[in-house]
Amino acid sequence: MLEKRSPISVGEAVRRVMNYNIIGQTEYIPINQAYGRYLSEDLIATSDVPHFDRAPYDGFAIRSVDSQMASQINPITFEVIDEIGAGMVTTKKLAAFQAVRIMTGAMMPEGADTVVMLELAKDSKENEKSFMTVKRPFRKGDNVSFTGEDAKEGEVLVKKGAFINPGIQAMLATFGYAEVPVAKKPRIGLFATGTELLDVGDSLVPGKIRNSNSYMIAAQIMRIGGEVVYFGKLLDDFNACYEAIKASLEKVDILLTTGGVSVGDYDYLPAIYEKLGAEVLFNKVGMRPGSVTTVAQLHGKLLFGLSGNPSACYVGFELFVRPIVRGMLFSSQPHLSKEESILEVDFPKANPFMRFVRSYAYIENGQMKVVPSGLDKSNIVMSLAGANSLMILPGGTRGFMKGTKVEVLLLEDHTGSEWPW
Amino acid sequence: MLEKRSPISVGEAVRRVMNYNIIGQTEYIPINQAYGRYLSEDLIATSDVPHFDRAPYDGFAIRSVDSQMASQINPITFEVIDEIGAGMVTTKKLAAFQAVRIMTGAMMPEGADTVVMLELAKDSKENEKSFMTVKRPFRKGDNVSFTGEDAKEGEVLVKKGAFINPGIQAMLATFGYAEVPVAKKPRIGLFATGTELLDVGDSLVPGKIRNSNSYMIAAQIMRIGGEVVYFGKLLDDFNACYEAIKASLEKVDILLTTGGVSVGDYDYLPAIYEKLGAEVLFNKVGMRPGSVTTVAQLHGKLLFGLSGNPSACYVGFELFVRPIVRGMLFSSQPHLSKEESILEVDFPKANPFMRFVRSYAYIENGQMKVVPSGLDKSNIVMSLAGANSLMILPGGTRGFMKGTKVEVLLLEDHTGSEWPW
Repeated sequence: MLEKRSPISVGEAVRRVMNYNIIGQTEYIPINQAYGRYLSEDLIATSDVPHFDRAPYDGFAIRSVDSQMASQINPITFEVIDEIGAGMVTTKKLAAFQAVRIMTGAMMPEGADTVVMLELAKDSKENEKSFMTVKRPFRKGDNVSFTGEDAKEGEVLVKKGAFINPGIQAMLATFGYAEVPVAKKPRIGLFATGTELLDVGDSLVPGKIRNSNSYMIAAQIMRIGGEVVYFGKLLDDFNACYEAIKASLEKVDILLTTGGVSVGDYDYLPAIYEKLGAEVLFNKVGMRPGSVTTVAQLHGKLLFGLSGNPSACYVGFELFVRPIVRGMLFSSQPHLSKEESILEVDFPKANPFMRFVRSYAYIENGQMKVVPSGLDKSNIVMSLAGANSLMILPGGTRGFMKGTKVEVLLLEDHTGSEWPW
Repeated sequence: MLEKRSPISVGEAVRRVMNYNIIGQTEYIPINQAYGRYLSEDLIATSDVPHFDRAPYDGFAIRSVDSQMASQINPITFEVIDEIGAGMVTTKKLAAFQAVRIMTGAMMPEGADTVVMLELAKDSKENEKSFMTVKRPFRKGDNVSFTGEDAKEGEVLVKKGAFINPGIQAMLATFGYAEVPVAKKPRIGLFATGTELLDVGDSLVPGKIRNSNSYMIAAQIMRIGGEVVYFGKLLDDFNACYEAIKASLEKVDILLTTGGVSVGDYDYLPAIYEKLGAEVLFNKVGMRPGSVTTVAQLHGKLLFGLSGNPSACYVGFELFVRPIVRGMLFSSQPHLSKEESILEVDFPKANPFMRFVRSYAYIENGQMKVVPSGLDKSNIVMSLAGANSLMILPGGTRGFMKGTKVEVLLLEDHTGSEWPW
């Protein structure tokens, strides 16, 4: 009953998955719900910014030409003919030696071409009239924010696929995107398998453990921007499993299962793929943990058979599922970011296969460093809690010494990479 | 009308705010909603992990003592008396030279103390009975995951204040936290002020701009884990403003306003604080942008008067509001993480005050580097879109050359720092 499987490389496995890249869909949502979603279209400036010449400081708008002869010994006085705050517009046009008191953000009056900052002007009153005096010349354009200075109408400011952060949110508002085109969240179906699994609310009994993978994977799905469709635990009966999986496929974009993909006597998934008529893209990958990760496709829809082992499940999701989902979110860099790092502890374990170690990467004195986030036993859930990265240890080695340069895949950044393999 | 204000240092300003640290509250939520929230209590192991001795691999459970004489020339054969998958328990107790076929995760049978991996055993059948043969000895405890090996009951595994990531989610499930104690989201009230502000759905008119700060700040509130209570735009009438602010204070934990805190003729906030009887903690900070940031307290409730200038508003929020909110989320490191970085471009601008430059920090060859994410004009929304950090440029300098070491505050990490000032 020991079926022989041929492992393929991680890069080749990811490539086979990415052949079935699915085009994402757009939906329009109110701007106040857009934070944390992904733009499905480029963000284009719908107007110049600013869309009128404006004062960047509080001061007096004048015609620069009138100030040219001003100096300490030759102060020049202007009549202040109006006063405008931000959002207000004066109807008056400046004549020679006239000024308008202007607040930050207000529109420049007609005729004015420079702003005298408050601290460089001395104001005075005479016969109910206001005046201000300057003692130096001002150049045309000084202290004016000109139309289109920050952005030009039609310019692409942010590319589609971007994670909508607070700054992008501000830009969406600036350009009047009351409804924002975002990528529809891919619907990711999820089944757990395993006779040993209790529900989270159940008491422990000998031989059984609580189902933690489903909650972990659900959080991983949310982290990368997908929507979780949890179908519960598959029954132990083959036909019931088959029917449940077949029915669920109609309801989701991608289907995940955890467990049941080994060659053990209780692993139904391979037979279910066969009965469904699904094409298995691979069922063994030259990596640890997660070597039994299996991916199949049926009519272009992907079925990911992740290991039941928590660490293997976690790693398999990040390497194989993430890029497909991020692709559906219009990212051009759907894979995890890969960075160089210094290993800060010895890792003496021999490494016949490429190994992904759940790790904690951090910056110290400007240098990225990394330590395993727990003991490297593949059944240990504990090591996942502190993990913000996966350290990549190449296969065919006898362990690594502290100080070695290693590559890490970052789990929590929005940037991603085009192709890390 | 030019009121003189005395600037205080950023560190001193933050300290004055943190004196009013508010104790967060706990609420219990279903585990499937816990991702992205913050633990309000330490996560404690409610049982040993594993809570029974189990097999980490598929194989045969035996008594190690029976294998001691096994070798290539002296194979030893065991009778296979049962077969158990994960979640199953055998009722049989091993006698000498007996074995139980066991799957990954299954409980060790009574009497067994080691597991022979499948590839080291040869199975056979004789007279309807199953046997397996080994050609080497196995040590007691080989390939067994012992009770409590990964975690001991009662152990604190994750400290309160932690961001609930997929790994922590898995641990919560493992330990039966069907309902999770998380920090209640602090309710952050938000008012915009400014005659110049149009709604996001409005068409542009001369002199007016769309309100972008409210959407930006709302996203910043969500990013740090708060709940947004948006009250809309304050009217231009002083009494209406006063009444609106007074009424809103009942409904929120913290109140933010944007704009109206300068000493300009249209800046009502200082007078409103006075009329409310609020104590102004500071109204000028020695920093750019954001020098007019004002914080007041009324009966221990904090009112943050952020600048109306987008960049100043953004920075003021991250420096002053974030740590208070993260404190309410039980973090012991509520401030932004500070890291060392290499400035990758010249920044020739003279710097009389400590400056916070919206920046993009990235890793290259393991080294953290940073570039400003846009032109450093304080009214430019554009530079915020690509910002993942704030570069700190100390005051009293004539600009910085490419290659200089600079400190950066990271905007998107969950770790934070205890005190970066």
